[in-house]
Amino acid sequence: MIEAPRWNPALLGFVCPQCSRLVAPEATLREPVCGACTLPLLARYDLERARREQSCEELGRNGRDLWRYRATLPFASPCPELRLGEGGTPLLPLPRLARALGLAELWLKDEAANATQSFKARGLSLAVHGALALGRDAIALPSAGNAGSAAAAYAAAAGMRCRIAIPRDTPEPFVLEQRAFNAEVLLVEGTIADAGRALATWAPAPEWWNVATFREPFRLEGKKTLGYEIAEQLGWRLPDVIFYPTGGGTGLVGMWQAFDELRGLGWIRDGSPRFVSVQAAGCAPVVRAFEAGATRTEMWEGAVTQASGLRVPSPFAGALILEALRETLGWAMAVPEDAMLEVMIRLAREAGCFACPEGGATLAALSAARAAGDVRAGDRVVIFNTGSGLKYPEAWRTALAGQA
Amino acid sequence: MIEAPRWNPALLGFVCPQCSRLVAPEATLREPVCGACTLPLLARYDLERARREQSCEELGRNGRDLWRYRATLPFASPCPELRLGEGGTPLLPLPRLARALGLAELWLKDEAANATQSFKARGLSLAVHGALALGRDAIALPSAGNAGSAAAAYAAAAGMRCRIAIPRDTPEPFVLEQRAFNAEVLLVEGTIADAGRALATWAPAPEWWNVATFREPFRLEGKKTLGYEIAEQLGWRLPDVIFYPTGGGTGLVGMWQAFDELRGLGWIRDGSPRFVSVQAAGCAPVVRAFEAGATRTEMWEGAVTQASGLRVPSPFAGALILEALRETLGWAMAVPEDAMLEVMIRLAREAGCFACPEGGATLAALSAARAAGDVRAGDRVVIFNTGSGLKYPEAWRTALAGQA
Repeated sequence: MIEAPRWNPALLGFVCPQCSRLVAPEATLREPVCGACTLPLLARYDLERARREQSCEELGRNGRDLWRYRATLPFASPCPELRLGEGGTPLLPLPRLARALGLAELWLKDEAANATQSFKARGLSLAVHGALALGRDAIALPSAGNAGSAAAAYAAAAGMRCRIAIPRDTPEPFVLEQRAFNAEVLLVEGTIADAGRALATWAPAPEWWNVATFREPFRLEGKKTLGYEIAEQLGWRLPDVIFYPTGGGTGLVGMWQAFDELRGLGWIRDGSPRFVSVQAAGCAPVVRAFEAGATRTEMWEGAVTQASGLRVPSPFAGALILEALRETLGWAMAVPEDAMLEVMIRLAREAGCFACPEGGATLAALSAARAAGDVRAGDRVVIFNTGSGLKYPEAWRTALAGQA
Repeated sequence: MIEAPRWNPALLGFVCPQCSRLVAPEATLREPVCGACTLPLLARYDLERARREQSCEELGRNGRDLWRYRATLPFASPCPELRLGEGGTPLLPLPRLARALGLAELWLKDEAANATQSFKARGLSLAVHGALALGRDAIALPSAGNAGSAAAAYAAAAGMRCRIAIPRDTPEPFVLEQRAFNAEVLLVEGTIADAGRALATWAPAPEWWNVATFREPFRLEGKKTLGYEIAEQLGWRLPDVIFYPTGGGTGLVGMWQAFDELRGLGWIRDGSPRFVSVQAAGCAPVVRAFEAGATRTEMWEGAVTQASGLRVPSPFAGALILEALRETLGWAMAVPEDAMLEVMIRLAREAGCFACPEGGATLAALSAARAAGDVRAGDRVVIFNTGSGLKYPEAWRTALAGQA
């Protein structure tokens, strides 16, 4: 086993966004979500202390991965021994697509450069460190694919056991990867919601520490580094609009938190970008709730899309996602399946990115929003590719067959 | 099209390692290899000038990708507009494997974090910039897989045409990826050597600029950044031994050049690490030549291995590879096919890395070298994973079936 990390002295604890109660770091073992409100817990730091420890000018000395921002991560310096290459992904200029869409500046945050080739490495790296800090030796989660692979990789490197429940129709590369890492994989009929239910009996607490989205407070801390990186890569000037493919929504909530934290640290002054939640037409609970003016998402029945990561019928943090969209004057959009696949090809041919369907979805949504006038020519826009297209051979075969 | 880059004023030209003649940057259009000696050309810089432009202490301001080292790359600052995420990959500590192998320090350079998920992005990024600088609009190459995918990605982003000849039995993900980028793909019976021959009629010069390994001088400049990164990531103290999976050998020759350049820049003082060329038992022309004391490699007949990148029967730069091994007191080793697959599993389960077979080969070679006493307990060792295991589903199916 890897040595357990110590807590960052600047970490005050984890707060419930509803009742505002503060849970101490070590108490998250018994209370991984707010016990009273059943809502995700959000980390709070002594930002004065963090600022004294770290200036944004000297981040360059901290390496290139997400531990660069360790002054506001839950674990104490120095860098942990358990690292697989999490974060530090490129923010790529898309000059040809910017010209085609009539945009001043367009950037792609390409998350395929992470360990296990997806954005999930950020959260699961932190979740496994959290599990180590709490003295756990076994983790479990339901997954649409990428989260399971990332969990399996970090668990393997840490010497922990790992159980993953995934939909039976998850593309094969995910399953190969998870088995390579020696995770136990349970194939479940249905969606990630069904996988979550299966986990309750197959990998029950307390033996198995549940690292499902927002069910423990550490994954969000990894995902917030997306916001830190985008801010730093744009010279501490935030973009105007961020298109984010939204399944569980950790990245969106994480970036929203990050920009607040960065203002608290004094590293940025800009207001928040408008967040746009991008979902698949076959599974769009956030879009439906946003358009209905609701404050919570409802279960989406019969969820179908090739973008596995977007097949999340009932995101646990739906209320937080909706709040982030409204507070930032953002919105939510659903992309039809065929547009998603068509635009994957466009992203490959005009930007050199072999994206996942979720990545195609963000460009498809931007094109539609630009056509509708919701994004202006002067806007500085960031879209996301959340993982490598290599994990979706069937979607790519379909997309390329459509070209023939 | 993307704007053509200008030449770095510190670039003196390209030198033939045999006749020492200097070819001017723009003259490489007519003379991409030494016309007299038919040997690869090697870039030479005014290192005094480069040192005045860039100190190693201030690299942190240059971003995270390989353009960080642009003071000694062929193109002028600022950073080019054409970037897909090349270089800046993690050097990962492997604490559990180090303990198991009785080594003080063991590191994995994980190249799956590059664009198109392999080390080939480094060279092909530079090659496409070179093609742009020379006014070309079409590139072609034979490939064992990864180089073709990287070439296709950069060509797409640059708005260039691209033709790739690859062995018919190349794993499907490479072909999907290359077609996604709109490259024309020719499937050829045999190996990369046969693909190279097919290219002569299917994509002839001068219309198609040949970016095959060492056939133009820019790919090597991209690959040398591996050496720059390892040196920087280890705090400008070089490791003792580097295990490198050797197909065409650009990375090995590139790192050897890089360490020389870094001494010239005054950024390091250490002598070179010992380079170990790792090949597959089914295709080991460098091992055979090294053991025979030869100065050139001979064509390896009937080359067979699941490590596509190692199925290079006749590396064009064989003489340079052998010189690098001998000058650094290194050596060459062949790894049996079953050991390669077994060790891929070990790398996944103890280090959390879903490697390609070439990556498995370097750990298998290190284990054998450690057992034989060729690597000592105090040695600081770097092994390589050259690309994502996601591109080799068949090798992984075989490896996992062997576990059942």
